[in-house]
Amino acid sequence: MERLKQKIMQEGNVLSDSVLKVDAFLNHQIDPVLMQEIGEEFAGRFAGAGVTKILTLESSGIAPSVMAGLSMGVPVVFARKKKSLTLMDDLYSAEVYSYTKRESNEISISKEYIGPEDTVLIIDDFLANGQAALGLMKLVERAGAKSAGIGIVIEKGFQEGGGELRKSGVRVESLAIIESLKQGNILFSKEEATV
Amino acid sequence: MERLKQKIMQEGNVLSDSVLKVDAFLNHQIDPVLMQEIGEEFAGRFAGAGVTKILTLESSGIAPSVMAGLSMGVPVVFARKKKSLTLMDDLYSAEVYSYTKRESNEISISKEYIGPEDTVLIIDDFLANGQAALGLMKLVERAGAKSAGIGIVIEKGFQEGGGELRKSGVRVESLAIIESLKQGNILFSKEEATV
Repeated sequence: MERLKQKIMQEGNVLSDSVLKVDAFLNHQIDPVLMQEIGEEFAGRFAGAGVTKILTLESSGIAPSVMAGLSMGVPVVFARKKKSLTLMDDLYSAEVYSYTKRESNEISISKEYIGPEDTVLIIDDFLANGQAALGLMKLVERAGAKSAGIGIVIEKGFQEGGGELRKSGVRVESLAIIESLKQGNILFSKEEATV
Repeated sequence: MERLKQKIMQEGNVLSDSVLKVDAFLNHQIDPVLMQEIGEEFAGRFAGAGVTKILTLESSGIAPSVMAGLSMGVPVVFARKKKSLTLMDDLYSAEVYSYTKRESNEISISKEYIGPEDTVLIIDDFLANGQAALGLMKLVERAGAKSAGIGIVIEKGFQEGGGELRKSGVRVESLAIIESLKQGNILFSKEEATV
């Protein structure tokens, strides 16, 4: 997705060979117009997949997911990272280890909002080692729902998550795939450029 | 806002005299079309207020804020509830006590995204005792920015937050004000009904 890649080039901040900070438009400050375009792009890519629900993870997945939900005409469910007082029983849960935050979180959704009748599109802001995506897939599986695949805003192509998911047969659509962040340079994967 | 009140009546769940669960369309599952209408309503109410940024709090404030940001043509910044590894220095911070979760959180924003040149609209999902709103106002103040007021999706009119904020001169626009949840009945404030 050309506009997204331009934005990453203009406003992304390479902190190390593996860390890209996009706090300017996705992870802290949010550009609503770009989010709308991202939502429309996901809607286009997963048109005809029979999606009935979008599942994401708080907090950075919410903005692109809500815009995709608006485009596709389906509700969004965001998994929570810890139990709150008003969301305690009748949960599907899974463990997710975050390398960025160096902690394990239990993510969970209420059994009320995803069930065997659903076809679920998982959307997340980043895909790196794939831990969050795998956790969200476990929730879909535990709900007995069908999976339509995974939509990712930015994939770190130099980490193993995307490759492993695709090898296992999961449909992964990433709007920008970064091949390398070496020496402060953002290099996009050619594969994505031809999508 | 009539559509919101209908949705609260149809899908809200009164858990006690003080707790209303709206996980069906706002706090866990999100209705993107309703969020768009909410965003447009905020845009209409704060038109002409010179808003340059929307500030909200993760996670449930993000969806209505991004839709308001889209309608108003301004970026959204969401305050984080604890420091992450990629967001550590150059922060404005404030303490917020959550009665629902029974814990104190430090909320913070990067100094990069709100400054003295900004006029900030604060948006949040709920207003009860006003702790989150006060914390967000402190962040605006610490950034040296002007405040355009506070937009709230659902206000619990029987708790003190809204009244105290208005008494102190803050403009508070709530799209639905609940007067009482007694005996499982949702009663809206007449004041809001005439807005």
